Amino acid sequence: MQANLILLIDRSTQNRSDEMNEQNATRENLVRAGFELFHRQGYGATSVSQILKSAGCNSGSLYYFFPTKEDLLIAVLNWCLENLWPEVIEPVFERISDPIERVFGILDGYRKMLVITECQQGCPIGNLALELADNHPRVRELLAQNFSQWRQAVEGSLRMASDRFPESTDLESLSLFVLTTMEGAVMLARAYRSLDAYDSAVTQLRNYIERLLLEGSTWGK
Amino acid sequence: MQANLILLIDRSTQNRSDEMNEQNATRENLVRAGFELFHRQGYGATSVSQILKSAGCNSGSLYYFFPTKEDLLIAVLNWCLENLWPEVIEPVFERISDPIERVFGILDGYRKMLVITECQQGCPIGNLALELADNHPRVRELLAQNFSQWRQAVEGSLRMASDRFPESTDLESLSLFVLTTMEGAVMLARAYRSLDAYDSAVTQLRNYIERLLLEGSTWGK
Repeated sequence: MQANLILLIDRSTQNRSDEMNEQNATRENLVRAGFELFHRQGYGATSVSQILKSAGCNSGSLYYFFPTKEDLLIAVLNWCLENLWPEVIEPVFERISDPIERVFGILDGYRKMLVITECQQGCPIGNLALELADNHPRVRELLAQNFSQWRQAVEGSLRMASDRFPESTDLESLSLFVLTTMEGAVMLARAYRSLDAYDSAVTQLRNYIERLLLEGSTWGK
Repeated sequence: MQANLILLIDRSTQNRSDEMNEQNATRENLVRAGFELFHRQGYGATSVSQILKSAGCNSGSLYYFFPTKEDLLIAVLNWCLENLWPEVIEPVFERISDPIERVFGILDGYRKMLVITECQQGCPIGNLALELADNHPRVRELLAQNFSQWRQAVEGSLRMASDRFPESTDLESLSLFVLTTMEGAVMLARAYRSLDAYDSAVTQLRNYIERLLLEGSTWGK
């Protein structure tokens, strides 16, 4: 009996564990579906039925995890925060070792996204920022956190090369400029349905950074 | 009789003219209402009833001039094309004569809009570009035309100072960089609900342009 009881307890624990795994998988599917749909077509334009179809879930699961659409959006933005480093930054940093080229490697990642989507999908965070920043305070804070995390990754890389810049260079401000360049350039690439605007903006940014590095190497020492 | 007939014709012409003026005024009210609402809350989030209320029109007038919501949007974007110079560019050019400072004067105009709206309204064209560029081909073309007109105004001003830049400077590309900086910086100012990001990006752009001018003045000759 004792052995059977242990077996029963084990089975019960196993069942609960399976159930937990299944629940986690369902939640993850909903978040990924939300991310993809919000990215492709915007938050307002995404319907509950599209989310359910894409996630392969029923509405009970959706409302269990996310009582409101905004709750799903908040989960999506937290998921973006968790995934920036493993999905966007680390693959670049593993491939490129020069800290300046790492920054341009990140920008090249966004170019690849434009190529794959034929300039039809922008930065997921930038899209949501322009759609939602004014009317969703909790969302706005998470959008700002996503921007900050991206900017800090760039700043960290520039700091690895801080001795190559003129001493007066404000690397926090420069890293923010890298972000504004990416966001503005992605926007124009989508409007023109062409990579030219993106490439042109990145070339200008490179010209600027090269001038700073030249100044750092000859005047700043 | 002849005199009376002429009077009747005159009255009829006058009535038609009044009717035309009234129709033009109604159409203009609808376009302005569309512009303001799309700017403030986005295209998808704007309802017919909001447009009617804001324009002070009935639905018959709206559907007479604009059978679909997209027709109104197209009229709004054409109105933006017509109004860029008189509303955005000329007031700056009348106040500032230096061609480089004119460019920063245009950027300062967007800063003023951020101040007035407490960073809650971005560039009307940029907002619509991220919301609509993918799914509305006619709209996308008009968005691109609006961007091009803005960029050309900046390029024209930079060309007035072309002898101050290094000979190799690509002023078309540089003017596009001014546009990407403005759009990216407005986006971040809205997400952070702060002017700091805007000011920081404009400072970086100024640093870059000053370096080009310095190079043009000492090395490029």
